[in-house]
Amino acid sequence: MKAIGITKSLPVDDKNCFISFETEKPMPESKDLLVKIHAVSVNPVDYKVRKNAAKDKELDEPKILGWDAAGIVEAVGNEVSNFKVGDEVYYSGEYERPGCNAEFQLIDSRIAGHKPSNFSFEEAAAMPLTAITAWEAIFDRLRLQKNGESDRKLLIIGGAGGVGSIGIQLAKKLTNIQVIATASREETSEWCKKMGADMIVNHHDLEKEMKKANIENVDYILNFFDTDMHWQAMANLIKPQGQICSIVENKNPLDLNKLKNKSAAFHWEFMFTRSLFKTKDMIQQHKILEELRLLFEEGSLTSTLNNTFEGLDTQVFREVHELQESGKSIGKNVIKFIS
Amino acid sequence: MKAIGITKSLPVDDKNCFISFETEKPMPESKDLLVKIHAVSVNPVDYKVRKNAAKDKELDEPKILGWDAAGIVEAVGNEVSNFKVGDEVYYSGEYERPGCNAEFQLIDSRIAGHKPSNFSFEEAAAMPLTAITAWEAIFDRLRLQKNGESDRKLLIIGGAGGVGSIGIQLAKKLTNIQVIATASREETSEWCKKMGADMIVNHHDLEKEMKKANIENVDYILNFFDTDMHWQAMANLIKPQGQICSIVENKNPLDLNKLKNKSAAFHWEFMFTRSLFKTKDMIQQHKILEELRLLFEEGSLTSTLNNTFEGLDTQVFREVHELQESGKSIGKNVIKFIS
Repeated sequence: MKAIGITKSLPVDDKNCFISFETEKPMPESKDLLVKIHAVSVNPVDYKVRKNAAKDKELDEPKILGWDAAGIVEAVGNEVSNFKVGDEVYYSGEYERPGCNAEFQLIDSRIAGHKPSNFSFEEAAAMPLTAITAWEAIFDRLRLQKNGESDRKLLIIGGAGGVGSIGIQLAKKLTNIQVIATASREETSEWCKKMGADMIVNHHDLEKEMKKANIENVDYILNFFDTDMHWQAMANLIKPQGQICSIVENKNPLDLNKLKNKSAAFHWEFMFTRSLFKTKDMIQQHKILEELRLLFEEGSLTSTLNNTFEGLDTQVFREVHELQESGKSIGKNVIKFIS
Repeated sequence: MKAIGITKSLPVDDKNCFISFETEKPMPESKDLLVKIHAVSVNPVDYKVRKNAAKDKELDEPKILGWDAAGIVEAVGNEVSNFKVGDEVYYSGEYERPGCNAEFQLIDSRIAGHKPSNFSFEEAAAMPLTAITAWEAIFDRLRLQKNGESDRKLLIIGGAGGVGSIGIQLAKKLTNIQVIATASREETSEWCKKMGADMIVNHHDLEKEMKKANIENVDYILNFFDTDMHWQAMANLIKPQGQICSIVENKNPLDLNKLKNKSAAFHWEFMFTRSLFKTKDMIQQHKILEELRLLFEEGSLTSTLNNTFEGLDTQVFREVHELQESGKSIGKNVIKFIS
C-alpha cells in the first residue's frame, strides 16, 4: 500500500519534509479493524510530531503521521464485536501507532465509531480528534452537567480553531452554558458566532476585553490556544472554586499559587491518554464517537470542516501542514484520498 | 475584653512574640454572632500569619490570630436565624477578621455550626478548620462520591497532621475508598491506623515505598504536607485521569506538564476561599459543620484532639506555636480558656 511519512524532522518549507513510500498492507488481529481510508484531517499534533519525532537522528523506517480519519472497514480482528466488514467508520487513533496518512490503517475498535450517515467521508474525517478532545474536556475533566449549566459562564480561549469550533457547539447545545469565545479577526469572530458562541472577545489583552464586555469572571475556562500567554488572565478571570482545562502544554514554569486563594483547579485534557495508558475505560472513546454520531445525524451538531484538499500526496500534506502551523486556520482542513 | 495578638512578626523563641492586651468587646450586627470563647486550636495558618503579617513594619494595632474555636453565643445580629443566645457553637472563621485568641469574637453565622453535643469545648475546637478543609478537598474539589469509591485508592500525604487525621476518617467512613496514608515515625503510623488508614507508607522516598507496598498508582492524592517535595512522586503515582488536591502552596515553580500525558488534574483547597470571596455558596460551610456534628454525635467520626493546654496567655500560645511549627505535631493541639 502507499503511505506518506517522515524519516527526518524538516521544516514545512522543505519540499522533502514528507516522503511517499510503499509498505505492506497490515492485517488486523484481536480488537483491531483494518480500514481503507477515504479522508483524513490534520491537527496541531501532526506538525508537532513532524517537527520532533526525527529531530535527533534519521529514522530507519518512515513514520506515518495522521490522527483523524474516515473510511470503510475491510477486515476485522477475531475479538471485534462492534464493527463488521463494510462499516463506514471515523476515528482519531493512537499516538504511538502508525497514523492514517496511508491507504490503509489498523485501528483499535474500542476507539472507533460509526461514521455519521449524513456526513461525507470528508465531513466525518474532520471531527474525531477535536470532538473527542472537546467532549472529554467538557464532560470528563470540567464535568459540566448536561442541560445543567444555564446560569453559568464558560470562556473558550481559541474559539475558531478545530477544538474550539466543536467545543463551542458541544457546550452550547448540550449544557446550555453561556459561551464566551475568543477570536481576534472578523472572519474568526463570525465563525465562532456560527458555531453558537453567545459572545466574542478579543484574546489580545483578554482581561481588558472581558471588563469591556462587563464580565467580571467565569465559572469555567477551556484553553485551546496558549497556556503560558493566558495564565495570568485565566487566574484573574476564573471564579473562586472555578475550573480551568487546557490542552496546550506550557513552555515555561507557571505560578500555580495564583489559583490557590480561589481554591481553583487546573485540568489537563490529552485525547491520547486513554489509548496511551490502555485505561480500563478506553472504550469510552468509542461511546463518545457513537454519541456524537447521533448528535450529528439529528442535526444538533455540524461538521467543522472548512477546507478540503485532495490526494495522498506529499505536496498536499506539506500545504496543509503549513496552513495548520500558521495558527490562522479556521475550523478543520481535510484531505480526501478517494474521489 | 482580653486578647492575645502580635504587632511584630517575631520568631517563636522570642518571649515577646505575642502580646496580651485589652480591647473593646465587639457588638454583633447583621449576620454575626458574638461568641464567648471556651477553647481554641492552633493550625499552620496561625504561625504563617504570625511570621508574615508584620514582617515589614510594626502594626499600629495588635492583630488577633486564631482560626478554630468553640464557645457559647452571647448575642446575635438582626439577620441571624440559625442560632440563638446560649447556643454552643464551633467554627473556624475568616482569614481577614480578628481571630479567636480572645475572650470574645464575632463570627458570620453562615460559617458557624452547632457544637457536637457529645464533645467538650476542647474536642470541638480541635475540628472546624481541619474538618472543613478535608471535607471540601474530598467532596468539593476531588468530588469523591459518598459510599461510591470502594474500588478506588486514595493516597493521603501527611496522614498524622490535623487535616490528615480527619481526612483519613472522612474518606474511609464516608466513601469506602482504600486509604493509604503517609507517616514516617512509629507514633505517627499508629495514629494514622487509629484514624482508619488501611495502609501506611513512609513519605521519605515515597515512590519506592509505594512500590514496596505493591501499589503502582492511585486514583486520588490529597497532599497535606509539602507540594514541592512531593510533586515528582505525585506526578508518577497518580493514575491516568486522576485527581490531585493540595492545601500547601508551592515555594518554587512546578512543572505542570508532568501531569499532561495523564490528563490529570490539580486542585487547590483553601478553606478561607468561600468567606474571603463571599461566594454565593458561603453557607455551605455552616452546612458542612452541621453534617459533621451529626457524624461526631453518632460516633462515626472522632475528635482529633491530642494535646490540651490551658490559659489565654502569651506563653501558652508561644509553646503551642512552637509545637505546631516543628512539623512533628500529631492530631490537634487545643488551648482551653475556661476551666
